[in-house]
Amino acid sequence: MIHGSMQDYPLTLDKFLDHAARWHPDAEVVTAREDGRIDRVGYAMLRTRSLAISSLLTDFGIAQGDRVATLAWNSQAHVEVWYAVMGIGAVCHTLNPRLTGPQLAATAVQSDAKILVASADLLPLARLIADRAPGIERILVIDGAVGEAAAAAPPIAELESLIAGASDDAVWGDFPETAPSGLCFTSGTTGAPKGVTYTHRGSFLHTLRTLQADVMAFTARDAVLAVVPMFHANAWGLPFALPAVGGKLVLPGRQSDGASLARLIAAEDVTIGVGVPTVWLGLVEHLEAAGGELPSLKRIIVGGAPMAPALMERIERRLGVTIQTSWGMTELSPSGTVAPPNDPHRSAAVSGRPAIGVDLLLTDADGAALAQQRGGEGHLRVRGAAVVERYFGEDRPATDADGWFPTGDLARIDAKGNLIITGRAKDLIKSGGEWINPAEIEAVVGALPEVSLAAVIGREDAKWGERPVLLVELCGDQSIDDAALLAPLAGRVAPWWIPDAVIRLSAMPLAPTGKIDKIRLRNEYGAG
Amino acid sequence: MIHGSMQDYPLTLDKFLDHAARWHPDAEVVTAREDGRIDRVGYAMLRTRSLAISSLLTDFGIAQGDRVATLAWNSQAHVEVWYAVMGIGAVCHTLNPRLTGPQLAATAVQSDAKILVASADLLPLARLIADRAPGIERILVIDGAVGEAAAAAPPIAELESLIAGASDDAVWGDFPETAPSGLCFTSGTTGAPKGVTYTHRGSFLHTLRTLQADVMAFTARDAVLAVVPMFHANAWGLPFALPAVGGKLVLPGRQSDGASLARLIAAEDVTIGVGVPTVWLGLVEHLEAAGGELPSLKRIIVGGAPMAPALMERIERRLGVTIQTSWGMTELSPSGTVAPPNDPHRSAAVSGRPAIGVDLLLTDADGAALAQQRGGEGHLRVRGAAVVERYFGEDRPATDADGWFPTGDLARIDAKGNLIITGRAKDLIKSGGEWINPAEIEAVVGALPEVSLAAVIGREDAKWGERPVLLVELCGDQSIDDAALLAPLAGRVAPWWIPDAVIRLSAMPLAPTGKIDKIRLRNEYGAG
Repeated sequence: MIHGSMQDYPLTLDKFLDHAARWHPDAEVVTAREDGRIDRVGYAMLRTRSLAISSLLTDFGIAQGDRVATLAWNSQAHVEVWYAVMGIGAVCHTLNPRLTGPQLAATAVQSDAKILVASADLLPLARLIADRAPGIERILVIDGAVGEAAAAAPPIAELESLIAGASDDAVWGDFPETAPSGLCFTSGTTGAPKGVTYTHRGSFLHTLRTLQADVMAFTARDAVLAVVPMFHANAWGLPFALPAVGGKLVLPGRQSDGASLARLIAAEDVTIGVGVPTVWLGLVEHLEAAGGELPSLKRIIVGGAPMAPALMERIERRLGVTIQTSWGMTELSPSGTVAPPNDPHRSAAVSGRPAIGVDLLLTDADGAALAQQRGGEGHLRVRGAAVVERYFGEDRPATDADGWFPTGDLARIDAKGNLIITGRAKDLIKSGGEWINPAEIEAVVGALPEVSLAAVIGREDAKWGERPVLLVELCGDQSIDDAALLAPLAGRVAPWWIPDAVIRLSAMPLAPTGKIDKIRLRNEYGAG
Repeated sequence: MIHGSMQDYPLTLDKFLDHAARWHPDAEVVTAREDGRIDRVGYAMLRTRSLAISSLLTDFGIAQGDRVATLAWNSQAHVEVWYAVMGIGAVCHTLNPRLTGPQLAATAVQSDAKILVASADLLPLARLIADRAPGIERILVIDGAVGEAAAAAPPIAELESLIAGASDDAVWGDFPETAPSGLCFTSGTTGAPKGVTYTHRGSFLHTLRTLQADVMAFTARDAVLAVVPMFHANAWGLPFALPAVGGKLVLPGRQSDGASLARLIAAEDVTIGVGVPTVWLGLVEHLEAAGGELPSLKRIIVGGAPMAPALMERIERRLGVTIQTSWGMTELSPSGTVAPPNDPHRSAAVSGRPAIGVDLLLTDADGAALAQQRGGEGHLRVRGAAVVERYFGEDRPATDADGWFPTGDLARIDAKGNLIITGRAKDLIKSGGEWINPAEIEAVVGALPEVSLAAVIGREDAKWGERPVLLVELCGDQSIDDAALLAPLAGRVAPWWIPDAVIRLSAMPLAPTGKIDKIRLRNEYGAG
């Protein structure tokens, strides 16, 4: 028995905003509006407003563990609501506006959300959801006016008009650090949506991990543009990370087109941009058409989708930035690996390295660890404080007997310890008893300048079980014949991997996260 | 009731070495030897050796919660022993070789250490300690040979000779994250030594805090020279932080003179140096005398003592580095505040800013929070996961009713949120009912080029209660009369703060941590 101890100091997310308000009171959260206006608030004022919202929520009956849903873009008000909900131990269930009313209502019914906070421009969708989710007692509108009065239940009010009259008696943080803070349903590209429950401890530790100098490395002198949406996977944790260091958080609102982003980056001296590759391609295309330079921008952190080397080089050259690639998933809160800033060996093919707190394991299809973790391809499993243990509402753990979460991704780890995602296990095609990895074929065909998007799926085949089929969407007015599409595969994949057919689509079907919807492709084109 | 959760992933220190061995197996821990040799080991091998030592300790009867003492310099073997002890849930009690045998034995009795790991060159001191601390069952020698056989108890063995025969059955980390990991007694410059119990959780979170880009910002590409000793306050956490990022840890062994450090920095391409200001002054003086450049060195992190602006400028200019000032104490595991790297507004007067996870509060002498936290001077209190809650063996908490730890320091917080330590509350002199802060007088006199060290203490005075007396040690062969010593105080402190007397010392008495021993000064010169 040893005496003596360190202080009990629960890792709860309200501490981030407390810290920012105290030590960086004038550092800002700025929001771009559709009319070109830019709203701004310091962390001290943001915290005061957020506490007032906590009081309102408490008055509306929200208690620890209750769910509050949000249907909103990246904006100051959305950040305020996040902290207001999480600070009192309630759970923020973010809804993705790119899904349909019935889809969203189903998750709101499952989470039993009592209040829905909605962006004014999403009010029609919010009403659809509330109609089908009777547990929603109230809609609170942010970022705009309610407009025409609504006769039907539930009651609708503008949050801003209530803040001034709110009491100041809210207290944050009076709950254990393992309490849930957020809820996000995966997009369901590979099955029914599953709810990932974020916790204060998990997201706090996730934040400390990303702030490391070899990871996202944000500082108080940075202005970080969060193009990644707050309605999906915590906007990669940026609304936690920037207050934690007192950096400026730049929110684009609804607009993520190249012109809007260029204007915002220039106006706010943005130093770091965070978002999927296509967003930065849009920015580059805007600058190439309209001209202009963005000298404040130093780094871009990409993730969420693989990136062609040529695109990486093009973005780096035109914007004068270095790109950090990364890999993550909703179930990881969401960051898994990130390439260090300004790594001279950076490459579009790798997704970075794990920082302390994320453990990776490559296994065979049965979950047995590969004897050699480096070099060979395996099924990727992860462990860590910010990695899902159990999905929302499920009795069974999402982890294996040793506590590892199977990601469903196929990956290699190179000699330097870089993670290389090589495909999705569920996308693999079994042909003649052997596996074909569509991601490798897609990477080769997708690198052709004529090709905008490429997907390979398995089509039923009487002799081989499945055979690969290539689906392509070409760029603008480009044309290319089938032989030329398949030609670059010769010598780069096994001959029997080469697709049996090419199907041209005017528009590739995308899931709400922007990824190619392979479920739909298999349904439409997978029959023999 | 919400379902779903994140993984249970205890924050235990063994994970740092596991991570380093897995992801940075060839990154090195290097140790300078007195004969000029440099030993090196990769993290993978270091972990294997450390696990073997865990097995040996277990065989010797060490179990979770047991204390193992170390009396050693900064070396590979010392790092291996740290992880070996902490990995199995035992507690590493570090002994400061600059204290006396009886002093150290008293703390070893208090901690009930069962094994003493000692550097070969400290074996005589180790025997003195073991003689007086009968709980020590065994001495294990590192970094050298035992030499002549010892007849007396306890048994002495060389650890290195035992490692090859150790079993490989040790398992790390099977205990809660709040378990104690280390024990360090404060130096007792202001009272009896008190034991600070470090915990896995506290030191893990301390590490994540220091790794932030705005704090110590170590990366896998850094080589960090740890001049701060492992026997005091965890060497500022460097033996945890470097494995956590896979950076090179450079250990100077026993030698911290300028010539030895210059050789080591050049040989190992050290990028960041960490130590008290006097160490870097020694390095500068060596280079000024012997010539040479150290181009790999980019940053120096100082702390532990205030630094004159002229010294800071001199070190930065000669070494071509930027200096990060910091403030900490044993009770904080030990880092409190750090100035960000390459801060253009850096200054010797400030001690940096708190990063997320350390809360600061300025109070009046009674512990009531100052209404204005910025601008005015107050008594500094701290809160955080790596801040002491209760000293070793004490029943009462070390914190106030609200959970704040009173540091005993006086401080200001400037408009930008920088911490400025202005003195020690216990050093204050009460003269005529008003307080005099000796630190302010010492800063002015200490800036004179003739003055090496300056201290001001209170001397009993029949009329005023106490009056200030100045004690000085001059540089080399310099001379300066009393009036010239006191002259710069005019207009910079209140007239009644000016010391009544000047006492010249050929050598200022120093406590084992290198700080001026004010207890001794008061005993010898404080009588009326």
